[in-house]
Amino acid sequence: MTKIPMSPANNIASWLASKKTISRLISGIELEKDFSLATLKSLHHRTGEAYRIGITGPPGAGKSTITNLLSRQFLQLGKRVGIIAIDPTSPFTGGALLGDRVRMTELGLDDNIFIRSMATRGSLGGLCKKAVDTADVLDAAGYDIIIFETVGVGQSELDIVRAADSVAVILVPESGDAIQAMKAGLMEIADFFILNKSDRPGAESAYSALRTVLTIRNTVHDPWQPGIIRSVGTENKGIQDILNEITRHRNFLTSTGTLNERREINAKSRVKEIVQKLIDDDLWSSEREMQLLDSLKSISVGKLSPYSVAEQILLNYKKSFRR
Amino acid sequence: MTKIPMSPANNIASWLASKKTISRLISGIELEKDFSLATLKSLHHRTGEAYRIGITGPPGAGKSTITNLLSRQFLQLGKRVGIIAIDPTSPFTGGALLGDRVRMTELGLDDNIFIRSMATRGSLGGLCKKAVDTADVLDAAGYDIIIFETVGVGQSELDIVRAADSVAVILVPESGDAIQAMKAGLMEIADFFILNKSDRPGAESAYSALRTVLTIRNTVHDPWQPGIIRSVGTENKGIQDILNEITRHRNFLTSTGTLNERREINAKSRVKEIVQKLIDDDLWSSEREMQLLDSLKSISVGKLSPYSVAEQILLNYKKSFRR
Repeated sequence: MTKIPMSPANNIASWLASKKTISRLISGIELEKDFSLATLKSLHHRTGEAYRIGITGPPGAGKSTITNLLSRQFLQLGKRVGIIAIDPTSPFTGGALLGDRVRMTELGLDDNIFIRSMATRGSLGGLCKKAVDTADVLDAAGYDIIIFETVGVGQSELDIVRAADSVAVILVPESGDAIQAMKAGLMEIADFFILNKSDRPGAESAYSALRTVLTIRNTVHDPWQPGIIRSVGTENKGIQDILNEITRHRNFLTSTGTLNERREINAKSRVKEIVQKLIDDDLWSSEREMQLLDSLKSISVGKLSPYSVAEQILLNYKKSFRR
Repeated sequence: MTKIPMSPANNIASWLASKKTISRLISGIELEKDFSLATLKSLHHRTGEAYRIGITGPPGAGKSTITNLLSRQFLQLGKRVGIIAIDPTSPFTGGALLGDRVRMTELGLDDNIFIRSMATRGSLGGLCKKAVDTADVLDAAGYDIIIFETVGVGQSELDIVRAADSVAVILVPESGDAIQAMKAGLMEIADFFILNKSDRPGAESAYSALRTVLTIRNTVHDPWQPGIIRSVGTENKGIQDILNEITRHRNFLTSTGTLNERREINAKSRVKEIVQKLIDDDLWSSEREMQLLDSLKSISVGKLSPYSVAEQILLNYKKSFRR
């Protein structure tokens, strides 16, 4: 039996060789264990090879189904695939809603696929950072394709898929017209669209509406023309077309040099998120938490402004460095 | 003609007396002008009287329609109403998608109603802080009811409605079953549900599914039982029932003392958000932005870890206090 080293940072290669230790490392990231930070630093030089795909859309659009089928396709091409699925936390169990994940069990048995669900856990935040950290682990472990799958039309959820190289937005005829998708902020981040369940009534008008909106968009100076791929996930239709569209986008990014540019932009927001996390941990000592708790009643009855309290806490923090 | 004082902080009362100057103050908040911070501090003692309602749900559920009808009802009861509508930014125009707002024009002419749209503006963030700041302005200006209306199933969007005293989640039969709503994180924050478009097929099964999920929830220790109100916004049906449910929840909160508790919890996250904003402004000087920009290429090619860069920047920030 191989002995697993206590600190992965000292022996990255062996940690990244087994699914079991990779899982442990990702759990460390989720629980913000110290060893995970050291490890992330030391594995960074192994990253950058994987191609990252973000898949998002409204609840019920068929994201899991499409993700599964796509992964199977990649496997057949000899690729190793990592899936990072963001599941909003259930308020009842405190854990992630893993219903969809159950369907992935079959896929998960394949040695060349790694599936990880991450829960949103209320307002704890830092989810985007953790998801990207996890992608780095899988990247360093030699997975060729990494798929972020998130439900959502929300800012934090969109931030996660935005961290990908190619972003697919899945819509269904029932999710309303293109205007609704625009309202949800989905048009902004899509490199291409998947119109799933396109055998349903209303599919053609949804397609046309989307086309029209994209026409308006194309008058703005952007050499990339997002495609609209029709699919029927439950019947395994359109998956090859999605794959082709991913390839078309990837070729566009590499041929124009936009891939590096895009990754640098992503690195920028990532560093900012890490800085914020480091400061948060540093600033919110139990002493300052107490200072805050003591002032809450005064704030809620209108006696003390939250701005004054915030300034006091910041002042206290800054003073701590002068000591 | 009355002269508007240059600095509202010196003359709050006159600023809060006219819609025009209130608007100017809110613009100051959105654009992060210095005067707005000073003003917010000095008007805080006037806040706390308004009752705040959050309305959210998936795109296309009919949030604007319900908000409009509800506001009209409040106006008839002699209440002054402020509406803060969060509109995701259009990627094409850079501005908010004001389609729905147009319908509000009629309402907006009433002197006792104030409508403000705020755009999400990509990843600029701070939207929750700005929305709550705006609510404080309207609260201090004597609006009795403040409604936050946000599209969304995302974290930042949910944070805004969570800042309210009562949160209504609007669902429609087509938005899928209760499990989908759970996935979107909506069950967690709802004080009650509005099943809109409940004349459509599938309404009864959607109602039952929601009921079932709520039954599970109720086994957990929570004395509050969220109602499910059926409505048909386009036919003005069910609005009085929604109003009754709001009253029932408000009475519950005040009779159990939970209202203060809830507002203190909200004050806590608010102070934390303000502290974060203050630090952000302070830390990201042009010098440190440059330090970050210089390292982006090294990060994206795997030479430098984003964690190392973040630590360097934080170190540099801390050193600046020792000087």
